[in-house]
Amino acid sequence: MREVAVIGVGMNRWGELWEKSLRDIFVEAALEGIQDAGVDRIDSMYVGCMSSGLFVHQEHLGSLLADYLGVSPIPCTRVESACASGGAAVRAAFIEVASGLSDIVLAGGVEKMTDVSVDGATFALSTAADQEYEVYQGVTFPGLYAMMARAHMERYGTTRRQLACVAVKNHKHGSMNPLAQFPGQITVEQVINSVMVADPLTILDCSPITDGAAAVVLCSLDKAKEFSKKPPIKIIGSGQATDSIALHSRDDFTFLKATWKAAETAFKMASKKPSDIHLAEVHDCFTIAELIALESLGLVEKGEAGRATENGMTTIGGKIPVNTSGGLKSKGHPVGATGVAQIVEIAKQLRGEAGKRQVKGAKTGLAQNMGGSGGSTVVHILEVA
Amino acid sequence: MREVAVIGVGMNRWGELWEKSLRDIFVEAALEGIQDAGVDRIDSMYVGCMSSGLFVHQEHLGSLLADYLGVSPIPCTRVESACASGGAAVRAAFIEVASGLSDIVLAGGVEKMTDVSVDGATFALSTAADQEYEVYQGVTFPGLYAMMARAHMERYGTTRRQLACVAVKNHKHGSMNPLAQFPGQITVEQVINSVMVADPLTILDCSPITDGAAAVVLCSLDKAKEFSKKPPIKIIGSGQATDSIALHSRDDFTFLKATWKAAETAFKMASKKPSDIHLAEVHDCFTIAELIALESLGLVEKGEAGRATENGMTTIGGKIPVNTSGGLKSKGHPVGATGVAQIVEIAKQLRGEAGKRQVKGAKTGLAQNMGGSGGSTVVHILEVA
Repeated sequence: MREVAVIGVGMNRWGELWEKSLRDIFVEAALEGIQDAGVDRIDSMYVGCMSSGLFVHQEHLGSLLADYLGVSPIPCTRVESACASGGAAVRAAFIEVASGLSDIVLAGGVEKMTDVSVDGATFALSTAADQEYEVYQGVTFPGLYAMMARAHMERYGTTRRQLACVAVKNHKHGSMNPLAQFPGQITVEQVINSVMVADPLTILDCSPITDGAAAVVLCSLDKAKEFSKKPPIKIIGSGQATDSIALHSRDDFTFLKATWKAAETAFKMASKKPSDIHLAEVHDCFTIAELIALESLGLVEKGEAGRATENGMTTIGGKIPVNTSGGLKSKGHPVGATGVAQIVEIAKQLRGEAGKRQVKGAKTGLAQNMGGSGGSTVVHILEVA
Repeated sequence: MREVAVIGVGMNRWGELWEKSLRDIFVEAALEGIQDAGVDRIDSMYVGCMSSGLFVHQEHLGSLLADYLGVSPIPCTRVESACASGGAAVRAAFIEVASGLSDIVLAGGVEKMTDVSVDGATFALSTAADQEYEVYQGVTFPGLYAMMARAHMERYGTTRRQLACVAVKNHKHGSMNPLAQFPGQITVEQVINSVMVADPLTILDCSPITDGAAAVVLCSLDKAKEFSKKPPIKIIGSGQATDSIALHSRDDFTFLKATWKAAETAFKMASKKPSDIHLAEVHDCFTIAELIALESLGLVEKGEAGRATENGMTTIGGKIPVNTSGGLKSKGHPVGATGVAQIVEIAKQLRGEAGKRQVKGAKTGLAQNMGGSGGSTVVHILEVA
């Protein structure tokens, strides 16, 4: 397999983009990625998108987006793994470049979520859970993650305040990200006293509904220097894994087996261990998700992520800054774009382009992108080449 | 890139499978493919599916199907390219094996289309066209293909009878396929006199709405002999391409640019030319689609496919038998499964396992799988190893 590097990144300002359609926001991010990479062509493209069918009644995104980006007749395929669709797109592009089939592959992600009602969005998102055994019984994602939170609190003594600290920290980071949907800072008290969604999770424990897109351009490392003048960021590890889609089929609500397995694969490919990681973007769709993800990745000891967050270990300036972009919580969560945007953030940090939120001396970063209640996960490890 | 072979194939009887859910029909086909391959593990999986979100309100098929097949925690990703989703899944699996990342990868395809009303299915299928510029104006796929048929008749003198001959031929072939949804034979007069859908296309020019699944197991050629006792069928060419999603943006309604480009790529990789092909499965979603596909692939001269079909060139026993499985027309068209089932048919033919419909002496076969009105196409060329 050939070595693969990120040579270009693009992302637009995320939010409620009512004046733009799915194709508009994708093309914006993709063009920025292509320009940043300094390439005059792409050989192939993957698009991560969870449910353009339910959100905007448009499937066949490969054809649509290659067409509107002006790159037809190149191959373009949409990949889907619920909220891990973006990570899956990056992985597909990584494999295609590594195989030698293509030299320059764009991995994009997009979701246009605000063209339906809030009920419509909740319904579309629920299709990431088991329809027959979970959703038909009335459970939606806040309920599933609330059960995980309760189990974690019960087993490890994680507190309500510690959950809130995840949100506070991510909004603090997001306040330094000009592309974030909700860059406003919040307090622990505001999180705890906000509207209850699914006990113990309040509205400020939940990531928002977002329109947005992101893109990365991957290139074989040996050819990377022909194009971008910026330092190529190598993808040194890629892992993907699945778990039961339904929460009730799992042995343990306080651990994400797919995240653990995907990380194990990625660490092995990268010849790295968790203590080698300088910063991470993890899938904080709910505050509890970040805590369990950190423990399942091995970045924090089992049961300790709540205390570690409260103590500042995961804040910029701490031992391992997590979600320096603001995470899903503050930056926003256009589901198919999220996994790609994680790679955008890691690449910007490793290039030293992260502005006010720059992590000093960061050389190795990790991105963890998760679908549903953890039924799928994609993990990438990146390093300055 | 490593050489890749098909070592196992599986497919269930297609039809209106009301007593089974999407997960049931996928698992049936996948288990048959795994058993046929003689493997005791798969390393990774891809699932082609167009719109499980709109058809059965279930996304996140990678997690769902790995779970129900009992193969978690292996990576599993759904890929989508409308009706070419199955071909895209085979191509993704091909690239992953070729890259060296995995040795044994299952590519499956599935669609459960009969859990919604006919209107619901028409709506879901319409999401393969351009929502903003085609569907909102009221056009659906029979209308789009009817325009292509009219243009082909006008330019090349293709007759109504020649269109009907495609359907008659494919039902003749399908009558020898025990897995076909509509194995009954039909006559030219029946096709022409059946209910009008979009002039000149009647209901018997159109492929049906189908529930079904198919699976192929791919393996690196050097390891293939460790497993299956059957002859490995090499994938010697893989091409994929896009075109404008909307028909009105094309230069020519009588030619499929994405099919031409995908075929060019696949022929080049395979070091073959059209005259080397002994049989083909092509995307006959409507009778006119088969004619234009054959011309765009270079298997028949431009404008000649109607006459060639009428003269028996594409019937079993003719110069190049096309859609020996019955094609989408008779075998059925569960959209995400179709491209995988094409590979199943070619592999069975090249192994000499096609029973009554066996093409004698077939060594090299081609599969062409198309999304929408031709906005995406995947072409594979296979050969006895």
